[in-house]
Amino acid sequence: MTLPDFARQTYAQRAGNFSNAAAKQLLDTMERKQSNLCVSVDVTKSSDFISVIEAVGPYVALIKTHIDVLDDFQPSVIDALTALGEKHDFLIFEDRKFADIGNTVGLQYSSGIYKIASWSHITNAHTVPGPSVVTGLASVGLPLGRGLLLLAEMSTKGSLATGDYTKSSVRMALDHPEFVIGFIAQSRMDSAAAQLGYAGKDLLVLTPGVGLDSRGDGKGQQYRTPKEVVEESGCDVIIVGRGIYGDGRNLDVADVRAKAERYRTKGWLAYRNRIAP
Amino acid sequence: MTLPDFARQTYAQRAGNFSNAAAKQLLDTMERKQSNLCVSVDVTKSSDFISVIEAVGPYVALIKTHIDVLDDFQPSVIDALTALGEKHDFLIFEDRKFADIGNTVGLQYSSGIYKIASWSHITNAHTVPGPSVVTGLASVGLPLGRGLLLLAEMSTKGSLATGDYTKSSVRMALDHPEFVIGFIAQSRMDSAAAQLGYAGKDLLVLTPGVGLDSRGDGKGQQYRTPKEVVEESGCDVIIVGRGIYGDGRNLDVADVRAKAERYRTKGWLAYRNRIAP
Repeated sequence: MTLPDFARQTYAQRAGNFSNAAAKQLLDTMERKQSNLCVSVDVTKSSDFISVIEAVGPYVALIKTHIDVLDDFQPSVIDALTALGEKHDFLIFEDRKFADIGNTVGLQYSSGIYKIASWSHITNAHTVPGPSVVTGLASVGLPLGRGLLLLAEMSTKGSLATGDYTKSSVRMALDHPEFVIGFIAQSRMDSAAAQLGYAGKDLLVLTPGVGLDSRGDGKGQQYRTPKEVVEESGCDVIIVGRGIYGDGRNLDVADVRAKAERYRTKGWLAYRNRIAP
Repeated sequence: MTLPDFARQTYAQRAGNFSNAAAKQLLDTMERKQSNLCVSVDVTKSSDFISVIEAVGPYVALIKTHIDVLDDFQPSVIDALTALGEKHDFLIFEDRKFADIGNTVGLQYSSGIYKIASWSHITNAHTVPGPSVVTGLASVGLPLGRGLLLLAEMSTKGSLATGDYTKSSVRMALDHPEFVIGFIAQSRMDSAAAQLGYAGKDLLVLTPGVGLDSRGDGKGQQYRTPKEVVEESGCDVIIVGRGIYGDGRNLDVADVRAKAERYRTKGWLAYRNRIAP
């Protein structure tokens, strides 16, 4: 598979391809920490949530959250998360998958108990509502220097984010380059962009469904390796969840650190191989 | 436009077409209250939220919530909402638009601060993740007698829920008849169902984007009248929001009641005209 030019540049070089503050921060962090690992922390107790992040913090560029699954959420959890981000030098990505009309997503992003826009550097949205989902979120996030990822593909069996849906998602990203910094996808979107007449715009690809030891979770999730994702498909960030911390309970910190280190090493090696001349 | 047989039956008759408890409850409530009105309550203060619901309660069969936009949410809001539902005889529909992998939506539905499954009779999901979004939610909601709506179409400009996407959504509904009770859509889905070889299965259609006095909100939302939606397109429930309560602040209760009454009357008239022999 031939990868586009952007996939041959270093992360540091690519920071210069973006005007969006969150995209620059993410790429600079990845270069500085030599990590393209994002850990997805899907646990329901705040104490487990903080323990997992404390353990994996040194190895990640990005922590992905589902803040709405924490049974005992308090605003102090956000303070602790933000402090860990500063201590360990990572960004935060609330995986909210916004998917409503512009007026509603603006409220969901800015308001409510969670006030996602106030602490999450990056969030994401489904493109099914059309462009108003992007403009509704941009009206809140852009003044705060936040960045948005669009779901161009999903890793689940029978996903409808394929073909024309994916292409329309790429078009929405390219139409909003100041706020949309890339995609949740399984491969680079450059050929779709080129077909739409937008060659030459760098966009990040963050890829969930990455695992080294399993091919699926029995609930529709399918896994690929860091080598397949980064080196062969040209994606930029690997998103790993339960493969690193299991169910998050009774955490064996040494084991979690070892697994995070392993994914970081594999992900970085795949990136080094990709950019090697 | 020729409407299918189900659209000629009364709501009471159609309650017998469903095995799902929430669908039966909704249809029986609509018949009993002579209302196919659902009010969407999109305000950010709990006191406004409760005031709007108290005002419109007598006129609605269903209250639609975005619980995550309440800035001062406390679990007591759910107690108050549930008590109003019992007092005024309406069901609750949390418009969460679940759109993630099965494992994640199961957590988002059952857990977190909101515990949506414990109080919301009906919720909804996007079909873009594929069938695992339905099975993940069903594992939580079906034992509680809950029902699910799938987003087959959206009322926003440039929505991607069209054509094959819509047809795939219909297939997902028909494949899970015990839990999926219908659609969020702009028209009946019977012809798509018939093309898929599933003629003869009744499914509800709840339709947002209904307004009597405006054609849009300037943020991508487009409005149609109750007559267009219920009588001409054969939809079952009209969902009305800001057209009834404005921004929800400094509520003029008499005015809100009058508007709710007006939408109820128009919606019911459209239904009576539709089922008239």
